[in-house]
Amino acid sequence: MRFLTKVREQNPLIHNITNMVVTNFTANGLLALGASPFMADSHEEVADIAAMAGAVSLNIGTLNPHSIKAMTLAGQAANAHGIPVILDPVGAGATPYRTATTHRLVSDVRLTALRGNAAEIAHVAGEPWAIKGVDAGQGAGNAIQLARQAAHKLSCIVIATGKEDIVTDGATTFLIANGDPILTKVTGAGCLLSSVVAAFLAVAGDQRLEAAAEAVSFYGVAAEIAAARTKGQGPGSFQIELLNQLSLAGEEQLNRMSAITPVPDSAG
Amino acid sequence: MRFLTKVREQNPLIHNITNMVVTNFTANGLLALGASPFMADSHEEVADIAAMAGAVSLNIGTLNPHSIKAMTLAGQAANAHGIPVILDPVGAGATPYRTATTHRLVSDVRLTALRGNAAEIAHVAGEPWAIKGVDAGQGAGNAIQLARQAAHKLSCIVIATGKEDIVTDGATTFLIANGDPILTKVTGAGCLLSSVVAAFLAVAGDQRLEAAAEAVSFYGVAAEIAAARTKGQGPGSFQIELLNQLSLAGEEQLNRMSAITPVPDSAG
Amino acid sequence: MRFLTKVREQNPLIHNITNMVVTNFTANGLLALGASPFMADSHEEVADIAAMAGAVSLNIGTLNPHSIKAMTLAGQAANAHGIPVILDPVGAGATPYRTATTHRLVSDVRLTALRGNAAEIAHVAGEPWAIKGVDAGQGAGNAIQLARQAAHKLSCIVIATGKEDIVTDGATTFLIANGDPILTKVTGAGCLLSSVVAAFLAVAGDQRLEAAAEAVSFYGVAAEIAAARTKGQGPGSFQIELLNQLSLAGEEQLNRMSAITPVPDSAG
Repeated sequence: MRFLTKVREQNPLIHNITNMVVTNFTANGLLALGASPFMADSHEEVADIAAMAGAVSLNIGTLNPHSIKAMTLAGQAANAHGIPVILDPVGAGATPYRTATTHRLVSDVRLTALRGNAAEIAHVAGEPWAIKGVDAGQGAGNAIQLARQAAHKLSCIVIATGKEDIVTDGATTFLIANGDPILTKVTGAGCLLSSVVAAFLAVAGDQRLEAAAEAVSFYGVAAEIAAARTKGQGPGSFQIELLNQLSLAGEEQLNRMSAITPVPDSAG
Repeated sequence: MRFLTKVREQNPLIHNITNMVVTNFTANGLLALGASPFMADSHEEVADIAAMAGAVSLNIGTLNPHSIKAMTLAGQAANAHGIPVILDPVGAGATPYRTATTHRLVSDVRLTALRGNAAEIAHVAGEPWAIKGVDAGQGAGNAIQLARQAAHKLSCIVIATGKEDIVTDGATTFLIANGDPILTKVTGAGCLLSSVVAAFLAVAGDQRLEAAAEAVSFYGVAAEIAAARTKGQGPGSFQIELLNQLSLAGEEQLNRMSAITPVPDSAG
Repeated sequence: MRFLTKVREQNPLIHNITNMVVTNFTANGLLALGASPFMADSHEEVADIAAMAGAVSLNIGTLNPHSIKAMTLAGQAANAHGIPVILDPVGAGATPYRTATTHRLVSDVRLTALRGNAAEIAHVAGEPWAIKGVDAGQGAGNAIQLARQAAHKLSCIVIATGKEDIVTDGATTFLIANGDPILTKVTGAGCLLSSVVAAFLAVAGDQRLEAAAEAVSFYGVAAEIAAARTKGQGPGSFQIELLNQLSLAGEEQLNRMSAITPVPDSAG
């Protein structure tokens, strides 16, 4: 049985401390998928919520000192209870404040996974990389090698998304060729993916790398179906259809369309 | 004439202090309905806005000390001017902080109405009840009796939503069988209902219980139409069609589909 | 070549400090248009982001002391680098706090453009005008004369939107007859327009007035197409189609449908 089906059977509670742009889209995406979103960033309760969650999803898209402290409290409570934590370092490298904040977060909280584009991953891991704004920065470097190095350095799963997506724990690496370019026209498409990965991690048991890879592939499959169904209609229609497909797509679609390739050790 | 038509004729200003997940959906839902949403939580102006509003809608979904103080200031200003106030105690019982906050709010602000699921109502009124996250907690207890007790204890209208919805002031009780299960797949569907009730309270005169019951029924009718029109399409399409139907559905649909049943005193 | 095409070729980074109701819609609208939205309001980084942006869009819809300081820091950084700044004074006049805040902002930050309805413009410029809530207040006064006076007083482009839209720098004035009334049923339709104007200002060079007029007209054309395609469907469908058309509509549609009329000096 797929992790996808486990998510739908177990409806894991996902505690999100995310940015103000994507709260609604993230919550609707998780509901569509079959998870139970809980958005809360009050210092008075984040540790309580993280402790009862299936996974915690942190996102610095509109960070400020208050939200960063909330993320730290939630992340540490999750750590204390063995609950998976994923960080989405939105715009790391775009400003000194973002870069410094991600360095502090990865030092204060033990991450299960880190999800960003190659430039963001590079900045969190302390490698130079070009970036413009929060959506760009594909760069030219070897993304697979970068992701592996970051996974070693940060001792966590690294998910570097781009034209193709990389999921690695440093030892084992998967290359995933699902998704559609129109995802870049929907704000929070990456942020929602991070929370979808959190939902899969919540039901992963000790197969976290496999669950993360399936999450990335499933999200890409849902996007491919949505893009095909709304071809030529524009990003508004695609956004709505993506929510639909996160609910409608299942194991059958995943079995047929999932494009996950193991990367040999020598490659990359 | 229905309260629905009065809302559309009077376009009441509804002051919302709500959570960061649902601000956009709530504002669009109120606009679709025919009301005038005003979202504002700055301590410097909430009393001014509440004082000129037709009703005030408070929601603790992403509460923090700042927003709670804003809710208190707005609620007290509304009280001073005889303006209806509704509270949506999202997640009451999920954390000690939420439960304590709702107790303080109902002590500091005189509510016209309280809208939540049975578990949330129970926690605000001080009854034990199971809860998981903010969306679940249907529980097994007698929801009608609970709602009546809460209405007596809190001296306000209580709206307990679930498979069927209960609207009661403790003396008179209505059971409402409108709505559709897909509402649980849209974040903020309950929060928007609370603000829709606020809009009906704003035009209710002294018929607040009847207006609240009509609001709950109308919202359910709009959801039923939207669910039928988007059958099999998924929660993204339903969400958009719900906004459409909050605008398009009228007295004709309400007369034909509304399912409000008075509950005899001895029942429940 | 149209400014529209320049926006799509240059993908300017637009730094938005806007209200919590419209962050998602604004970001999606800018992405659909072809710009790169960046939402950030942390005092620690707003000056850095504004300094690398193509334009800065400020919006007081859910203002508070923290966000106002962020707007001031971002606006002043933009001023220091010659980067265009647009202000959307949502609800100016609705409360003393909003009016006072806009007066402080226009004193602390040199605006390139001010975009609001006639009532909001009047309050920022210090003229009496009727207002109810944040969406109403069309008033009966001479909006063209008001916009010109405000442009002189504030030394910036003034965009007064209503049944017809006025774009003026005080000397040259355009009247724009694009758009559709259903825009008033979508929350943040005006806020998004302000950020769309910012995107056009970012590629305007020294033709800022012409670029602002084209932005207003293009937004109205996209709305007209969206309204025609979703006729009778309701505001939910319109909202999604507006995002679609901000992406799909191009120079061809603009050339055919744009309705910009220069207003003679003696008129108004």
